Amino acid sequence: MLLLRRCHGLTRFGHVHIQRHHLPPAVLSHAARLCSTHDNTSHRHLSGFSWKHGLAGLLAGAGAVIAFGLHRHEAEHPAAAAAAQTAESSSSLPVFGQEEVSKHRSLSEGVWVTFRGGVYDITDFVAMHPGGEKILLAAGGALEPFWALYAVHNQEHVLEILSEYKVGELCAEDLKKQEPAESSDPYSTDPDRHPVLRVNSLKPFNAEPPPEILTDSYITPSAFFFKRNHLPVPQVDPASYQLQVEGLPGGAVTFSLEDLKTRFPKHDVTATVQCAGNRRSEMDREKQVKGLSWGISAISNAKWSGARLRDVLLAAGFGPDVAQWARHVHFEGLDKDVTGAAYGASIPLNKAVSEEGDVLLAYEMNGEKIPPDHGFPVRVVVPGVVGARSVKWVGKIAVSAEESSSHWQQYDYKGFPPGTDWNTVDYKSAPAIQELPVQSAITSPADGALIDSSDGFLTVKGYAWSGGGREVVRVDVSLDGGQTWQVAKLRSSDEAHEAPPPPGRAWAWKLWELTAPLPPPAQELEIICKAVDSSYNVQPETFPPIWNLRGLLSNAWHRVTVKIIEG
Amino acid sequence: MLLLRRCHGLTRFGHVHIQRHHLPPAVLSHAARLCSTHDNTSHRHLSGFSWKHGLAGLLAGAGAVIAFGLHRHEAEHPAAAAAAQTAESSSSLPVFGQEEVSKHRSLSEGVWVTFRGGVYDITDFVAMHPGGEKILLAAGGALEPFWALYAVHNQEHVLEILSEYKVGELCAEDLKKQEPAESSDPYSTDPDRHPVLRVNSLKPFNAEPPPEILTDSYITPSAFFFKRNHLPVPQVDPASYQLQVEGLPGGAVTFSLEDLKTRFPKHDVTATVQCAGNRRSEMDREKQVKGLSWGISAISNAKWSGARLRDVLLAAGFGPDVAQWARHVHFEGLDKDVTGAAYGASIPLNKAVSEEGDVLLAYEMNGEKIPPDHGFPVRVVVPGVVGARSVKWVGKIAVSAEESSSHWQQYDYKGFPPGTDWNTVDYKSAPAIQELPVQSAITSPADGALIDSSDGFLTVKGYAWSGGGREVVRVDVSLDGGQTWQVAKLRSSDEAHEAPPPPGRAWAWKLWELTAPLPPPAQELEIICKAVDSSYNVQPETFPPIWNLRGLLSNAWHRVTVKIIEG
Repeated sequence: MLLLRRCHGLTRFGHVHIQRHHLPPAVLSHAARLCSTHDNTSHRHLSGFSWKHGLAGLLAGAGAVIAFGLHRHEAEHPAAAAAAQTAESSSSLPVFGQEEVSKHRSLSEGVWVTFRGGVYDITDFVAMHPGGEKILLAAGGALEPFWALYAVHNQEHVLEILSEYKVGELCAEDLKKQEPAESSDPYSTDPDRHPVLRVNSLKPFNAEPPPEILTDSYITPSAFFFKRNHLPVPQVDPASYQLQVEGLPGGAVTFSLEDLKTRFPKHDVTATVQCAGNRRSEMDREKQVKGLSWGISAISNAKWSGARLRDVLLAAGFGPDVAQWARHVHFEGLDKDVTGAAYGASIPLNKAVSEEGDVLLAYEMNGEKIPPDHGFPVRVVVPGVVGARSVKWVGKIAVSAEESSSHWQQYDYKGFPPGTDWNTVDYKSAPAIQELPVQSAITSPADGALIDSSDGFLTVKGYAWSGGGREVVRVDVSLDGGQTWQVAKLRSSDEAHEAPPPPGRAWAWKLWELTAPLPPPAQELEIICKAVDSSYNVQPETFPPIWNLRGLLSNAWHRVTVKIIEG
Repeated sequence: MLLLRRCHGLTRFGHVHIQRHHLPPAVLSHAARLCSTHDNTSHRHLSGFSWKHGLAGLLAGAGAVIAFGLHRHEAEHPAAAAAAQTAESSSSLPVFGQEEVSKHRSLSEGVWVTFRGGVYDITDFVAMHPGGEKILLAAGGALEPFWALYAVHNQEHVLEILSEYKVGELCAEDLKKQEPAESSDPYSTDPDRHPVLRVNSLKPFNAEPPPEILTDSYITPSAFFFKRNHLPVPQVDPASYQLQVEGLPGGAVTFSLEDLKTRFPKHDVTATVQCAGNRRSEMDREKQVKGLSWGISAISNAKWSGARLRDVLLAAGFGPDVAQWARHVHFEGLDKDVTGAAYGASIPLNKAVSEEGDVLLAYEMNGEKIPPDHGFPVRVVVPGVVGARSVKWVGKIAVSAEESSSHWQQYDYKGFPPGTDWNTVDYKSAPAIQELPVQSAITSPADGALIDSSDGFLTVKGYAWSGGGREVVRVDVSLDGGQTWQVAKLRSSDEAHEAPPPPGRAWAWKLWELTAPLPPPAQELEIICKAVDSSYNVQPETFPPIWNLRGLLSNAWHRVTVKIIEG
């Protein structure tokens, strides 16, 4: 009965076979024990939960930190971890063959997985999985390749949770067959990275440059450009590379790298790319959010060169007739997970085909071939739009009446109100993030820095940028916690006499600097910056009113506190 | 010597003839008395003042309240008012002919004006004039027609100020000649207006509907649509109306109203128009600003119909060759001041000619010919952009490499940092406002309303809009001063099944509504709304960080406080 109640919350998926096989008494008693810790409150909580996508977008591809707080048994069974790790050892649990395990690949039939020789029925955990339904991809098979893909799982408390769902042992013969899967690391061919980068996640690789070097150059050197990978870096042979363009009259058309380089004019676009999670760590300090703990440097600026997407679409058959019904352009990366599912996203058609949209199929970054981490040999660059749409290693483009059904388009990279939590989130209620709001941050001095007062002046530096091609027109800096403001000097190019961008096409950030007298009696200063863009939009003052469960769009005023010391 | 020091601040205009004519001893002593009240502090203040444009944009055309606080003698000489008003009476001042007065039309030659038979040397006042250099238009002649145009001058303390600059009497014969000018009221042909409107200024006419009716219909009835006139409403004969288009190869082209209606496809665009000064009164409450005291209703929504500007420009000779050099499109109204100077503004070329810009030369408003107050027979409608660029009664359009040199483009309708005051403002430092930032307000309940608690629920209503075609995607409402937020229901059309606008072309507002339980123990509620647009830009929390001396772009969270009473 307790078990029945526990499963009640899952019935929306259809009929659930509660006793799908003969469970030994030990398992039943374990399930009963689990249930006994679920009082009515937590049961209601589970029932009200948006099961299907409630947690989607957290982990899978988004590289988020697993939301183990949602798992109600965390730390209740510390001894269980050891049990999972020694699954090979003898136990009283039944032994299953891979064939039996493979039958359990759905919520209705049960979701089983294997790990280090153990068999786990994780049906009830699916809804609590921070990575959402992506977990179903692993159903009926081994977890190892997935955990190799999403290395965030390799933590002791993850093993602890898993151990609670153990229902049996995998037979020795089938375990042996899995060995190759266990030993392969899909990240083994990832490129070397510069050691100065601050790593947020190794597998997939996510890292940002230290703020103190971020604004040392208007163009970010590629090695320091923030890296945001959702999957292993694919190995693409430029000689055999083919870009497929679909959805246009006349059927699919393919372009080689040589085609892109020779059949279309080469365009240069200096564009800043920002991750939707830039500055997440600050929002997280207000109230916990889920996601990689980015500092202020998940943003960088490069000169991209390549063919215009518009030109390629026109060559592939795009025309006014297509514009009648098409609304979106999809991009699919060559980076794939173990099931062969590729990273994907889409942008609105008008951005893709507008002469002023400046969307590139870039084959150069800062005048050189694009480095592996940034999309070699070809990536999309969608200026003014969240980085997640600038699909790297692009292999397929499709014109469509619908938005991409990709996980990253539908169940991630959306903004929600501060009152929405993981129990109430409805992904259909918010539009996919495209243009980003106005942003700025202080890169120097660092928070907590000691400032020598001997010369009487303080220099503050940073970056400012806005989405949608809206130029940053002003950055205000306060040395007194927002009581008074001074206007920073803006720098928009390395070349002093470069013409300003046309209205609505200011794709690149501005670096800014202010040198001001130190307020004489101050021992501590709260320095704040806030930017204004050409639509006179401004940054919000604080994080609570823009707080959202995924920690995206974190653009409140940036604040650093410094101590003044006598030199 | 004192007089010399007084004039020192003006020397940047070139050589100043301090003793341009023989002043009688009384005038010299009057000047000396004026100077004696100028201590060194105020002298420095004057020297540091941005003379030329420091106060421009306040009054002339902007319909602002005169900044008399800047005049240092306010209320120091209360008796002077009577003197000015009885200027016809005998005095010991010299008598001048109009010919002599007319010679004083510049800062170098002195700026003289006449008023009710008195002659005034206002050279020193020019820099302090809240309407800026527009005052020079009156130089050498009678003030009466200008004060009829800008009725804000008809206040006792304005006369007081003027009286201090009196230097003589106009000879009786020339005074008599002025009489027709005195009796003509340029506003005598202004149309009748609906009495429900809340009038901010009668001449020129500026008025807004009461908030409680503003959001009763998605389309604002034309009679209730806010009125924002800079000058008298011109009388335009639709049969002889001619729109002149200049700056294109082949020379000027003119179009009759019939041409616009028959030679070009008729387009309908539902677009919200908002004054840059909407909600100024709230910003003013934080710290005084200059301008008409708009409430929350200087915004309205209408269906506009007419020819696309793009089509008309193409017909007039616009093409890729022009796009090579042209950057702006200027509009000039048929509304003119007494000197014949017309209202003018410009928009960026790409907005004007883009297929997605939806800029109209509208001849219909809400399905009927445009009412006189809204631009009959033809006005520009620039969707997504500040109302000031949607030039009414448009008579001339010019394609140009430069922005309009119009006062309203260069010295008004710009945003400045909170630290900028009238002494430090540099109009060149800020871009002309085009796209407006995200905005929302609560239209019901009204601030201070008494709410009957008997049904236990409260309904809050309002509007939300953003510039640049960015759709409002969410409105958050708080009933507890911003501690918690609920999401309002949005309504984007009167017609339930109307297709959503394409991305970047959401020109019309959304009305919103939230019905929520009354917090049980509350006796008073602070209700707040804040909107989020499709670029995820948000409204700032408070006014001080966005405060600017003209009170523009006033889009902080809207707050109303209501009292709960038992029914």
